[in-house]
Amino acid sequence: MSAKVWLIGAGPGDPELLTLKAVRALGEAEVVMIDDLVNPAVLEHCPQARVIGVGKRGGCRSTPQEFIHRLMLRYARQGKCVARLKGGDPCIFGRGSEEADWLAERGIASEIVNGITAGLAGATQCGIPLTLRGVARGVTLVTAHTQDDSSLNWPALAQGGTTLVVYMGVAKLADIRDGLLAGGMRADMPVAMIENASLAQQRECRSSLGAMAQDAAAFGLKSPAILVIGAVAAERMAGTQTGASEQSIPALLAAAGLR
Amino acid sequence: MSAKVWLIGAGPGDPELLTLKAVRALGEAEVVMIDDLVNPAVLEHCPQARVIGVGKRGGCRSTPQEFIHRLMLRYARQGKCVARLKGGDPCIFGRGSEEADWLAERGIASEIVNGITAGLAGATQCGIPLTLRGVARGVTLVTAHTQDDSSLNWPALAQGGTTLVVYMGVAKLADIRDGLLAGGMRADMPVAMIENASLAQQRECRSSLGAMAQDAAAFGLKSPAILVIGAVAAERMAGTQTGASEQSIPALLAAAGLR
Repeated sequence: MSAKVWLIGAGPGDPELLTLKAVRALGEAEVVMIDDLVNPAVLEHCPQARVIGVGKRGGCRSTPQEFIHRLMLRYARQGKCVARLKGGDPCIFGRGSEEADWLAERGIASEIVNGITAGLAGATQCGIPLTLRGVARGVTLVTAHTQDDSSLNWPALAQGGTTLVVYMGVAKLADIRDGLLAGGMRADMPVAMIENASLAQQRECRSSLGAMAQDAAAFGLKSPAILVIGAVAAERMAGTQTGASEQSIPALLAAAGLR
Repeated sequence: MSAKVWLIGAGPGDPELLTLKAVRALGEAEVVMIDDLVNPAVLEHCPQARVIGVGKRGGCRSTPQEFIHRLMLRYARQGKCVARLKGGDPCIFGRGSEEADWLAERGIASEIVNGITAGLAGATQCGIPLTLRGVARGVTLVTAHTQDDSSLNWPALAQGGTTLVVYMGVAKLADIRDGLLAGGMRADMPVAMIENASLAQQRECRSSLGAMAQDAAAFGLKSPAILVIGAVAAERMAGTQTGASEQSIPALLAAAGLR
């Protein structure tokens, strides 16, 4: 038997940034597996489903990837429609393609639903456009976190002329700074550090490349956070940037019966 | 008087990739200004609104930016709730921040709603993950189109180690190839060229850096298209990738009374 697995990008914190397609998929789901970084408020779209929390925070690995794979497979083989909710987009640091391939090897069809990535939503909430005519002709999204300790080519990234958005970088601020300085990026290049992007509890700390490590420590910056590095990080678009969900994640998790 | 202007990312072609927030904003709108590259199927969410087509295709500039600004201002000063629908995301090659700032200078509040950018949706539809562990630790989105003829640092972009997604690049394939080769990128680096990303009429042409200009000509590649350049462009994720809206853009425009 092969039922379907939806691999859904739930977007950043703001539950209103869920797509219509994600809402449809959640409405079809009989089993919903939700990652830690997904706002549980989105579960309002699947009151019919059995909900399973499968958090896997960087470092503490509360639910191993292998176990998540097995769970998806078990329910799909029971003929159930499974929805896997991931933060942001499944194909931007989300392993969506790995899960799709793993399922396909076992005869299970899947479909990926794109989501708004946290770096984009967080920057917008802070009034920072990731591209801007005459200032930044592009944007580069990278993750500082790897399992294999491979290193990004920070000096080349410094020279590309694009805005840099770094995910999972809180623990590596000094390394990132040194790599970018080595590539010739100016120490006074503006930096915005955004904690809990697009959630009501979002906090931002504006700094510069040279000062970001010290400023983050003074600010008490915690994961999850994204860094926006580039001239646009000095921008504060006019207009109304509003916060997102009113409730805290712990409260929402409790309300959803997940904690 | 200051009413509000929503600057809305309508996402790529697939109207189901609209966010819930965009749907809410459309429901509040009294006047909707829609760009050429937005799928008019999204207008089903604003049957109450007056709809104005403000196409501005690269090159032919059917509606000058200044005129669009004036229109937004006029309706906002009448106290109307205005929604401006842009393709993709307003802050990724969308001038959202310029429009927000221009409006704010005139006392008009605005709010930006993020959308799924075409490069992401198009790649996903083709089964290409923009990042992949062990293959691509990041992704760079750039536009090849500028008004000022400034040049991107293609050699540096070649060395960053990220997947490159190039918007508006169809007319500049030879320049892009030469710049990336000069940066040391291999001529056999996989390339996917995706026309009409995420629409039912999406077409894809797989090629390589060295051959992409000739292959695009033989394929008859037309704008709008995106290029995905990098090792991930050889991927074809397993699972079901489905097309999006069933109707063609001209048919939808006609149905919406816009052509």
